[in-house]
Amino acid sequence: MTITTVGLDADDTLWHNETLFRLTHRRFTDLLAPHCDEATLEARLAETEKRNLRLYGYGVKGFTLSMIETAMELTDGAVETSVIREILAAGREMLTEPVEPLPGVDQALARLSERYRLVLITKGDLLHQEQKLAASGLGDLFAAVEIVSEKDADTYRRVFARHGTGPEQAVMAGNSVRSDVVPALDAGCWGALIPYPLVWAHEAASAPKDHPRYVELGSISDLPAWVDGITGQ
Amino acid sequence: MTITTVGLDADDTLWHNETLFRLTHRRFTDLLAPHCDEATLEARLAETEKRNLRLYGYGVKGFTLSMIETAMELTDGAVETSVIREILAAGREMLTEPVEPLPGVDQALARLSERYRLVLITKGDLLHQEQKLAASGLGDLFAAVEIVSEKDADTYRRVFARHGTGPEQAVMAGNSVRSDVVPALDAGCWGALIPYPLVWAHEAASAPKDHPRYVELGSISDLPAWVDGITGQ
Repeated sequence: MTITTVGLDADDTLWHNETLFRLTHRRFTDLLAPHCDEATLEARLAETEKRNLRLYGYGVKGFTLSMIETAMELTDGAVETSVIREILAAGREMLTEPVEPLPGVDQALARLSERYRLVLITKGDLLHQEQKLAASGLGDLFAAVEIVSEKDADTYRRVFARHGTGPEQAVMAGNSVRSDVVPALDAGCWGALIPYPLVWAHEAASAPKDHPRYVELGSISDLPAWVDGITGQ
Repeated sequence: MTITTVGLDADDTLWHNETLFRLTHRRFTDLLAPHCDEATLEARLAETEKRNLRLYGYGVKGFTLSMIETAMELTDGAVETSVIREILAAGREMLTEPVEPLPGVDQALARLSERYRLVLITKGDLLHQEQKLAASGLGDLFAAVEIVSEKDADTYRRVFARHGTGPEQAVMAGNSVRSDVVPALDAGCWGALIPYPLVWAHEAASAPKDHPRYVELGSISDLPAWVDGITGQ
């Protein structure tokens, strides 16, 4: 089996993301604490996000709008406007947060890029993802960048046909079973899960442990050897 | 000269967009009328949008956040929360507005697609632009779709290298001198301006009237004959 192309997820695979969302959640629950307990607030925010997903898609701007909407609904409009301003500021800060590659990412990508075509495949706000990639300093290692509205099997078929030699000769690696692994396996790719300590509720799913083209790695540092191993077989 | 590829802008070229933004502006100024006169409000909203552009990029979600921010700033937080809810609702309605091709678009694209590779090139929210294309029923006429964060000469070079035979053999057509025409000409493409009655202040610019590869057309219905004419020369 020959692997020519390696797809990599971005958020929580190459750099922190969910941690930043959790910190903003904390800020949000603190702001609304006079109106509502944390559990109720989190549940309502999750509902609002889920309801808005088909309209807003993924990313910080939609998340900010969903926080404002949740604050309005939960307080029946009685929320202080200072809270709305704080939410707007929190969203803007998320968009300007410095981006630093997770441990081992630089070395793993440098090694992979010597033998394989690297493609970044990520959801989220178009401009923000481009800015994060630029800020990370990793941009030059990628032959292509695909910012997509949804990660399903068709997405992986299309991306690896366009930028590689088809899904059968591609590995997809990321931290989400639901977005990075399962649809990539369905498309015919190899799939590597690189867990991140936190998973967004929307992304939770069970790993396909017995799938012949699947592996769960301890860290991105193990990815180059695994990919080389497929090709060597 | 052989033309192989025709790039088309989407908003206000294939379907109405600025009209919808103007209607939402009107709704916004009505909502804030108790606090502020229309001219001041419009000026402040334009400032906020411009300031946020590098952070939010183009599209309805960023516009909604900028409306909320402007309402907060102008009233020094004294705005009623019912107004914030109305702004959120206005943003959501923009995202679900039905999409209908402008007059002549169906026929022009059908004719162009017989001879040339069509590529949709647009700014805005990723998911929303995909949804509008799907709703328009025009999706099958395009060989490729590129939703980009900025339209500069590099964008056109990259897109027409990837999806065509380079910028020299490509026409770019759209309603914005600043985004669709000038950078496309700079990249080496041919450029066709198809004016729309309204232009967003940010997009205003003077047409390069004497440029040898530029034309201003009365309507998209004139585009196929103009492109054929280049090839025929």
